[in-house]
Amino acid sequence: MKLWQKKTALDKQIEHFTVGEDPQIDLQLIKYDCMASIAHARMLKKIGILKSEEVEKLIKELNRIIELAGKNKFTITEEQEDGHTAIEMHLTKKLGDLGKKIHTARSRNDQVLAALRLYYKERIETCEAGIQRFNRSLDQLIKASGSVRFPGYTHTRKAMASSVRLWADAFSLSMKDNLKLLDTAEELIDQSPLGTGAGYGIPLEVDRPYTAKLAGFTQIQENSLYVQNSRGKFESTLIHTLSQIMIDLNRMAADLIFFSVPELGYMSLPETFCTGSSIMPQKKNPDILELVRAKYHVVISQEFQLKSMTANLISGYHRDLQLTKKPVMNAFETTIDCLSVMSAVIQNLNVNSEKCEQAMTDEVLATEKVYELVRQGIPFRDAYRTISKQYE
Amino acid sequence: MKLWQKKTALDKQIEHFTVGEDPQIDLQLIKYDCMASIAHARMLKKIGILKSEEVEKLIKELNRIIELAGKNKFTITEEQEDGHTAIEMHLTKKLGDLGKKIHTARSRNDQVLAALRLYYKERIETCEAGIQRFNRSLDQLIKASGSVRFPGYTHTRKAMASSVRLWADAFSLSMKDNLKLLDTAEELIDQSPLGTGAGYGIPLEVDRPYTAKLAGFTQIQENSLYVQNSRGKFESTLIHTLSQIMIDLNRMAADLIFFSVPELGYMSLPETFCTGSSIMPQKKNPDILELVRAKYHVVISQEFQLKSMTANLISGYHRDLQLTKKPVMNAFETTIDCLSVMSAVIQNLNVNSEKCEQAMTDEVLATEKVYELVRQGIPFRDAYRTISKQYE
Amino acid sequence: MKLWQKKTALDKQIEHFTVGEDPQIDLQLIKYDCMASIAHARMLKKIGILKSEEVEKLIKELNRIIELAGKNKFTITEEQEDGHTAIEMHLTKKLGDLGKKIHTARSRNDQVLAALRLYYKERIETCEAGIQRFNRSLDQLIKASGSVRFPGYTHTRKAMASSVRLWADAFSLSMKDNLKLLDTAEELIDQSPLGTGAGYGIPLEVDRPYTAKLAGFTQIQENSLYVQNSRGKFESTLIHTLSQIMIDLNRMAADLIFFSVPELGYMSLPETFCTGSSIMPQKKNPDILELVRAKYHVVISQEFQLKSMTANLISGYHRDLQLTKKPVMNAFETTIDCLSVMSAVIQNLNVNSEKCEQAMTDEVLATEKVYELVRQGIPFRDAYRTISKQYE
Amino acid sequence: MKLWQKKTALDKQIEHFTVGEDPQIDLQLIKYDCMASIAHARMLKKIGILKSEEVEKLIKELNRIIELAGKNKFTITEEQEDGHTAIEMHLTKKLGDLGKKIHTARSRNDQVLAALRLYYKERIETCEAGIQRFNRSLDQLIKASGSVRFPGYTHTRKAMASSVRLWADAFSLSMKDNLKLLDTAEELIDQSPLGTGAGYGIPLEVDRPYTAKLAGFTQIQENSLYVQNSRGKFESTLIHTLSQIMIDLNRMAADLIFFSVPELGYMSLPETFCTGSSIMPQKKNPDILELVRAKYHVVISQEFQLKSMTANLISGYHRDLQLTKKPVMNAFETTIDCLSVMSAVIQNLNVNSEKCEQAMTDEVLATEKVYELVRQGIPFRDAYRTISKQYE
Repeated sequence: MKLWQKKTALDKQIEHFTVGEDPQIDLQLIKYDCMASIAHARMLKKIGILKSEEVEKLIKELNRIIELAGKNKFTITEEQEDGHTAIEMHLTKKLGDLGKKIHTARSRNDQVLAALRLYYKERIETCEAGIQRFNRSLDQLIKASGSVRFPGYTHTRKAMASSVRLWADAFSLSMKDNLKLLDTAEELIDQSPLGTGAGYGIPLEVDRPYTAKLAGFTQIQENSLYVQNSRGKFESTLIHTLSQIMIDLNRMAADLIFFSVPELGYMSLPETFCTGSSIMPQKKNPDILELVRAKYHVVISQEFQLKSMTANLISGYHRDLQLTKKPVMNAFETTIDCLSVMSAVIQNLNVNSEKCEQAMTDEVLATEKVYELVRQGIPFRDAYRTISKQYE
Repeated sequence: MKLWQKKTALDKQIEHFTVGEDPQIDLQLIKYDCMASIAHARMLKKIGILKSEEVEKLIKELNRIIELAGKNKFTITEEQEDGHTAIEMHLTKKLGDLGKKIHTARSRNDQVLAALRLYYKERIETCEAGIQRFNRSLDQLIKASGSVRFPGYTHTRKAMASSVRLWADAFSLSMKDNLKLLDTAEELIDQSPLGTGAGYGIPLEVDRPYTAKLAGFTQIQENSLYVQNSRGKFESTLIHTLSQIMIDLNRMAADLIFFSVPELGYMSLPETFCTGSSIMPQKKNPDILELVRAKYHVVISQEFQLKSMTANLISGYHRDLQLTKKPVMNAFETTIDCLSVMSAVIQNLNVNSEKCEQAMTDEVLATEKVYELVRQGIPFRDAYRTISKQYE
Repeated sequence: MKLWQKKTALDKQIEHFTVGEDPQIDLQLIKYDCMASIAHARMLKKIGILKSEEVEKLIKELNRIIELAGKNKFTITEEQEDGHTAIEMHLTKKLGDLGKKIHTARSRNDQVLAALRLYYKERIETCEAGIQRFNRSLDQLIKASGSVRFPGYTHTRKAMASSVRLWADAFSLSMKDNLKLLDTAEELIDQSPLGTGAGYGIPLEVDRPYTAKLAGFTQIQENSLYVQNSRGKFESTLIHTLSQIMIDLNRMAADLIFFSVPELGYMSLPETFCTGSSIMPQKKNPDILELVRAKYHVVISQEFQLKSMTANLISGYHRDLQLTKKPVMNAFETTIDCLSVMSAVIQNLNVNSEKCEQAMTDEVLATEKVYELVRQGIPFRDAYRTISKQYE
Repeated sequence: MKLWQKKTALDKQIEHFTVGEDPQIDLQLIKYDCMASIAHARMLKKIGILKSEEVEKLIKELNRIIELAGKNKFTITEEQEDGHTAIEMHLTKKLGDLGKKIHTARSRNDQVLAALRLYYKERIETCEAGIQRFNRSLDQLIKASGSVRFPGYTHTRKAMASSVRLWADAFSLSMKDNLKLLDTAEELIDQSPLGTGAGYGIPLEVDRPYTAKLAGFTQIQENSLYVQNSRGKFESTLIHTLSQIMIDLNRMAADLIFFSVPELGYMSLPETFCTGSSIMPQKKNPDILELVRAKYHVVISQEFQLKSMTANLISGYHRDLQLTKKPVMNAFETTIDCLSVMSAVIQNLNVNSEKCEQAMTDEVLATEKVYELVRQGIPFRDAYRTISKQYE
């Protein structure tokens, strides 16, 4: 039975369609939903809706649900529709009438946002740790091979001298800037939605700052309608931020695929990182890099989905917003995985210093020749034209 | 053990990452993979690679796999990586050395495309049947309420007289044009890739037209490199085509959400199609329509993913293309579901003819007044200005 | 003065914003708008609204506008807002009351669609001619260098033997399939919208098939609401179709950038096709190819804009749809330009047959070695494993 | 003559295609390019490349160019290709050999990024001012009508009581969060690229912090390759940030279109903000709101274009990146315009308090009835079920 259900049962096909993947998706949110529910229950005690012993019972049972979920033993049925219903039904089954009180002063609208934002906060931390590990891998690469020179490219053509240090450091600094974006994204989502109901408040005096503090939010999101309108919007900033991590990995993957073309051979992956072909026996393919490259596009398409889906709608919740859960969760998992895999790639990367040096052919140094003339007082453009004649 | 595997085992993390969701996704393709394999095996007999009794054994076992898959009893392990490997290993386990011959004259590259295109052909048929049913529902609606008039809107403002017939028929005709797009998409994918190997042919005389005919393709895709380059490309036409069905459903959903706003009340959904709120006891929400509306965006984001992912790559297969399977399968399932659900919606739609008639207020007829003057010989623009004064 | 204008003038800022780029964009449509207006005027005579001499005067003046527009001497002011208004005002200025009759039995809604579709038809023809020329260039390349072998790549790694013929032919066949998509797109837009007004018909007996025939449409789009609902939708099929041409050019550009990396050197562009660097005197850059590669993304973003913009809206015209003009016109111009430029690229491409041959190293032939064993009766998978040992 | 040009002239068609819209686009950047060039020239003096009198002459002439550009009197020809060339040629024409020295220690790659980032900084300020003005308009609306109650909607159905204050404040707070995103975007782009050349540094001792300070950058972007790799990337964060402003305006536009449907009539636009129809004399259409709604999609498609275009490329500059200029400039102009127009809309909005009050029908208060029971000690879910029976 659903939380809102009256006597009429929902048409079976309609039920199946509306419920969709929520039961599976919500399993990942149970922990955070219970954490927010515990804070909410404590607040209900503070404002006199629950008694001390009631709140203790609820907390005990909510913790048990967290434990069950951690062991993959908590289930959400299609009939239950979502995690919120499954939790309330579990509580009512275990605690009787007390379970029916937990939804006082909230709607599933603020409840799910609380769970999601707690989930986001944890995933942001995981991303940050992933970036740190990635950057440490780069540091090790620089320590081992930083001084190896090889041609820098523009337009996929040799340009000027580059080095492993310059190359690796470019990604490291970019990731540090990504951390700033993660910080801002976190600042946005670190606003407690609890106590805003379905977007138009709760007809009861609730202590929102108290719940927020207990749930671990830095501040409350004051305006109840803004809470709903920010759904999908904050998520789009999250996915955008993840896409910035992913574009760095996409570019690094493209670089490594190119640098490890045997015809160039500046770098190579160990065999344990390469796959083969079912028809061509000689092949050693960089599938791992190609998949990382491709997954950038998975992430940006999640962002696009969310940005397109939430537009042209009036203020307030619409069921459309239900479909915003999956893209952002998918984007987090993808990014975290790719950061981890690319850290392993860097740690196992072979730099072929001999091939690098051989590739430092004359034209890579053409610009330096120009500057030798500039140092002799020749105007830059004249020096440039003089040297360029050598390459006509 | 993978088909290409040599002595070096793949790093575990790398293996897990590269395999990804393929084992799950490929379960849906087993049937089509076996169908194409049966055609392939027969061709191998024709060109003398297999003997009659060998091909019979292979076909028997391939049919057994189809049967197992139909009962969800065929499995693909992560170690096996994909359905092609699982099938070959099954055959080798059951038939010994004979199983090792099935991959003669093919690569997984042409194998997977054959399976996918057979899958697409079946899904296109399902879509067409879905459209037929959808249009029959519209016909019934027209039969029951076609003559009911209600205001047509432009700019979300009353414009001129519309009717249930005009409205329903607009969608029906649009769906008929969608069928033309499906036809063209089918014409494209109805080209046999079998016998093109990994994009550069097979060093063996194969009889491609024969395999194509047995597998049910109208023609062969002549150029082996084009076969690989069309991967992702044909799929983007498929998803685009599905997006055209979905934009019609998106618009119909938007219409019905608006027409059933109680303040207008032209149409309504039965209670068994409506959901409620966990906090507001009076709510009857059109979640079903909102989800259909939202799922259009799911489909176009799949298209965008595919179009973005496959660009800026050189000719020939890349592992990036592996990720094109999921978007198109997802788009098919979504579209087929939404067609079905919207057929049910139309069949259960209530038209409130009284509210429709009441809404036919004076301004809806303003343009008709203009044309009364036009019929009296007044130049159109003067007639327009005369009548417009009544609405200043 | 605008066609709909009453006594109240529009706020200046609002006017500027709503008019936007329409005056510039509509200049490209004047010719088609007049062509459709001529057909419309003839129909108005047939149904008795206009007299013979009136229609002759109108046609003469409409042809004069076409002529002026062809010489860039027809102007649309911001005050006039769009081409339709500019045309009607021109006619009224020249012909007095007669000009006020031209808008009888139409709205700007069907008028603009007629103009756009005639414009599309012409652009589709230009695309087709562009494809023919592109394919002729490929034919010449094949004639000159088709037999030159060079390595085919998968995963950006040497795979098996390819040839200029195989490579060029892959694009040629893909373009031929693109022609099928163009045909279907044309079939869709070749439906006359004239006589459907603002989406809800005209309160006057009009002869739509007659207008359609005169304007050059194969059939009428029967349902007036469908006419409006297909706006943006048909355009998205057009842009999708153009994106299919562009993805081929994107891939060809990626190939040529890679094949002409000096380290490989299979092919090269003449110097007159290459640009340089303001700092590095030696550079010869394939900017032309990079821009073609990039412009694919311009085209798909137009498609995405249109697909996102037109969703979540109820049936009937909205001003949002005004912004669909620019993306499709931009997509046409971009595609036509790129086809032309890439034809020139192919015509001027140098194939370095010596470097191609040198690159046909042993591993490119590994698969052929496998098949030598297969021909000796060794099961494929065993043969594969035997040969693969040579590359461990 | 182009900066890199040698004896061979570029093929005319190729030149036209590669130059594209740069001459027009770059006109908007001339001022910022000259500002950065002045800082660069001063640095060249500091490191001994230029003499005091030389740098004074250059600065004088660069300021003259700024002045000319401000009066639309500075031109860039197709032959010149871009603003950088036009500036250098102007200097060389006016100052002889001295002009040939200005490009010492830079490439167009760092030059254009400096100009763009200075342009971005100014546009970000304009956006911030636009947000401040928008929020002041909301404050005035709240002062005038904040206490007016009207139904809050979820699922486009009446939910609970809202008010003009709640509604307007939701947008105001969202805009304040947008300012945080603008701050972070600014922090990213406020890194000086000057002195990094084409991505691989300058073979000369330059004083980058000095140039940065003079040009108004807070810090230098240390790594030269990162400078190039951040092109397109920083821009995507900029457009994402603008899209967050635009989604708020999109939602506000959707709200106002819905709230001003005459059937509801909660709010309305003055006639000077409405447009009409060329066929229906009674129409008063909210085109202005529809265009703002649509322009959100223009902005997100620019973001998508940039994100798709810059992927799957190796490190270092590619001409593809040239096409990133237009999307971000377009996104800035669009957002600034829409903020301004929507401020005007709010300032001129009529709130119909009578219609608002009439719409506060019984069901809007259903949740309050539930909480009356809750206050009497009835468990929430039981109270909910009791009240829900009234609405069956």
